Amino acid sequence: MNNEKTIPYKIYLNENEMPKQYYNLRADMKEKPAPLLNPSTLKPMTFEELRGVFCDELVKQELDDTTPYFDIPQEIQDFYKMYRPSPLVRAYCLEEKLQTPAKIYYKFEGNNTSGSHKLNSAIAQAYYAKKQGLKGVTTETGAGQWGTALSMACSYLGLDCDVYMVKVSYEQKPFRREVMRTYGANVTPSPSSTTEVGRRILAEHPGTTGSLGCAISEAVEAAVTREGYRYVLGSVLSQVVLHQSIIGLETKTAMDKFNIVPDIIIGCAGGGSNLGGLIAPFMGEKLRGERDYRFIAVEPASCPSLTRGKYAYDFCDTGKVCPLAKMYTLGSGFIPSANHAGGLRYHGMSSVLSELYDQGMMEARSYEQTEVFKAATQFARVEGILPAPESSHAIKAAVDEAMRCKETGEEKTILFGLTGTGYFDLKAYAQFNEGTMTDYVPGDEELAASFSTLPAVDERK
Amino acid sequence: MNNEKTIPYKIYLNENEMPKQYYNLRADMKEKPAPLLNPSTLKPMTFEELRGVFCDELVKQELDDTTPYFDIPQEIQDFYKMYRPSPLVRAYCLEEKLQTPAKIYYKFEGNNTSGSHKLNSAIAQAYYAKKQGLKGVTTETGAGQWGTALSMACSYLGLDCDVYMVKVSYEQKPFRREVMRTYGANVTPSPSSTTEVGRRILAEHPGTTGSLGCAISEAVEAAVTREGYRYVLGSVLSQVVLHQSIIGLETKTAMDKFNIVPDIIIGCAGGGSNLGGLIAPFMGEKLRGERDYRFIAVEPASCPSLTRGKYAYDFCDTGKVCPLAKMYTLGSGFIPSANHAGGLRYHGMSSVLSELYDQGMMEARSYEQTEVFKAATQFARVEGILPAPESSHAIKAAVDEAMRCKETGEEKTILFGLTGTGYFDLKAYAQFNEGTMTDYVPGDEELAASFSTLPAVDERK
Repeated sequence: MNNEKTIPYKIYLNENEMPKQYYNLRADMKEKPAPLLNPSTLKPMTFEELRGVFCDELVKQELDDTTPYFDIPQEIQDFYKMYRPSPLVRAYCLEEKLQTPAKIYYKFEGNNTSGSHKLNSAIAQAYYAKKQGLKGVTTETGAGQWGTALSMACSYLGLDCDVYMVKVSYEQKPFRREVMRTYGANVTPSPSSTTEVGRRILAEHPGTTGSLGCAISEAVEAAVTREGYRYVLGSVLSQVVLHQSIIGLETKTAMDKFNIVPDIIIGCAGGGSNLGGLIAPFMGEKLRGERDYRFIAVEPASCPSLTRGKYAYDFCDTGKVCPLAKMYTLGSGFIPSANHAGGLRYHGMSSVLSELYDQGMMEARSYEQTEVFKAATQFARVEGILPAPESSHAIKAAVDEAMRCKETGEEKTILFGLTGTGYFDLKAYAQFNEGTMTDYVPGDEELAASFSTLPAVDERK
Repeated sequence: MNNEKTIPYKIYLNENEMPKQYYNLRADMKEKPAPLLNPSTLKPMTFEELRGVFCDELVKQELDDTTPYFDIPQEIQDFYKMYRPSPLVRAYCLEEKLQTPAKIYYKFEGNNTSGSHKLNSAIAQAYYAKKQGLKGVTTETGAGQWGTALSMACSYLGLDCDVYMVKVSYEQKPFRREVMRTYGANVTPSPSSTTEVGRRILAEHPGTTGSLGCAISEAVEAAVTREGYRYVLGSVLSQVVLHQSIIGLETKTAMDKFNIVPDIIIGCAGGGSNLGGLIAPFMGEKLRGERDYRFIAVEPASCPSLTRGKYAYDFCDTGKVCPLAKMYTLGSGFIPSANHAGGLRYHGMSSVLSELYDQGMMEARSYEQTEVFKAATQFARVEGILPAPESSHAIKAAVDEAMRCKETGEEKTILFGLTGTGYFDLKAYAQFNEGTMTDYVPGDEELAASFSTLPAVDERK
């Protein structure tokens, strides 16, 4: 179909073309995302309140919705050069396989040991913790990508790293745990009996396989109850979307270099960090009225926060120790089924993306797991990369859009984020290969029950 | 130490700078590697004899020791663009950690799903099989990297792929097996009862964990006893070294672009494909008297074919169904301990490298497993990449050379091959992390016993 191949298979920026600033999407939003609220007072969280949990510099980034650009410190830029720039790949082989007139590109973030984009924010957060003179950081991890990324960043900078890993992933992915240990981290399956909130959750839900929400509660407790520690989070927060803007900025620079303009931009959405980062500079153009794009957030049908959730203030964690965030949520009491796309098993969604979705700036859709793995396997066989289950949600949507182009004959340019590799997801692939993979879609009653856990918040400001 | 950083962290060639020809190192050797012999007649194997086992085009490449360059077919070049060019990395972080005046570079071949350089030859061999109109190919795999690579290549081209996987790896690396299955391959643990030679080996060595030599015998039998199949091999053969020359050619082009000249070139050595490919163009210069380099082959102390083996004609496989090759060998009866560096568990060594070593063109050394993993972990923590155990042998040697520079103050330029990632070697890393890893060095009596399996060959030509 596209036989000329005037565009390289992989576009790598030169190191001197890499972004030197993060882009803060919120600065271009007229209607800003709603502020984090203190669950006791229901007033916006202040710098002083947040700095007990997060590093000072990160709190500043979190609260700043007007500064458009933040300099990337030289040390972080240097670390990025270990594994970035990441390639923008033209999916010639996939296009050929689909026989579509669409042009498909993907930004591949999996070429590092953490196996995903998570390292982009991990090094930033670890850097600011180190700069503040802290001893260490605590965090949660779902699929293990974030925990691995943070372990790598902490080991590089010489910081302690305590990771609470969602129990289902801890058990399904012992090798992830081992990578973290190789990088010197302490890894605890969550919920655990090492924290008060963990013991409470275990008592209430014996036999639970855990969730990101639970693990967050435990990690926060482990940070605030010890001297010299702070909590860091791999997604959801606005600061994380800020750091991840490097994905979109690199992508935009690469596309501009070759005069490529995407029509549709697709990303998988768990907490929203990858999607928010990928779309950031493009969404900025749309917000400023400079150019229009279609944005599609893709989530698992088993954890459909955008497509079936409510836009409301909710706790970020199951244990209700975190501030309230206004977001599309299934309720902090929602504990997703043991779906393998671990990184997308979060009840809520970045407040930046939630607000953009609510404003109609972005679409959302959900897919069931087996159709996602079918697309993943098809992709692996022609593009060579074995994708992470999370990323494969975006692949599925991209393939669907490309097939639509085949029907209509439209030569659209599709860009999607390939956030990571599936090397640590082989149990899930084995289930798919053996035909024993099952789908799960929560029933309306189940959702109604978890919506009932939403706190009552009067939003008059 | 090297604060200027005028060289990028990672040098990527442009796609149009990628090699369009393979380089045949043998063409520049005055003393050629000894020919393969027919074990019955003890005469050099002919094209007609070999074509029953290997594809025609590959037999031609195997037998040709005078043509210096072979064109890389466009289809193979296109496939390479899916995952190549691979980066030449300046190990700034490792240099800083070691506080060495040495400049360290590594060519990283792990950025593809097979996790290693093996894909370079897999696609070439699968391509020629397809071009010959064959139905499929059979092969053996040790650590699983070659099997994965061949599965990927076959799936891309639509060929059947039957993989005999060394039993110890099959059991230690179920996820490797699953990747191969995802790419549509049939995987059988070796020795198996599916072949005559497998049944014989099982009867003679009940409870054996297998070896590459056994698996080769089974795969050859599975190829020659079925219509439309041929056998392909991931290392040892001269054709494989030819295909792998793309590693060295890319490296040389990248170094030339930045006026970098290595003093020492280091590679791990199992069957020799990575090392032979990496050094090819540099060794060519040395053979032609244009420039001198030090070359160091690094092998595990548990399977020391170069450092403790004999230079003699031997069977390439345990089952003695293959031709005889003159090489440094421990004897085809040598079954290595269940050392985790699976890809280096081969009793022999490429005849090209063996001849070069015998001519004194190259050095060799061996390391024990725990010191290798120590270097691997140190490397991972500063360079970010979790290396394969095989590759880590080269890391250990590079670190040792860099530390020698620190003592002497010499600013040498060290290049090593980082052949792959250790994402599927986490059981070995777990043993290292837990302190339960053990070393194994074969005793002199053990080696004497396996040398007694060497065939009696009169080398008068």
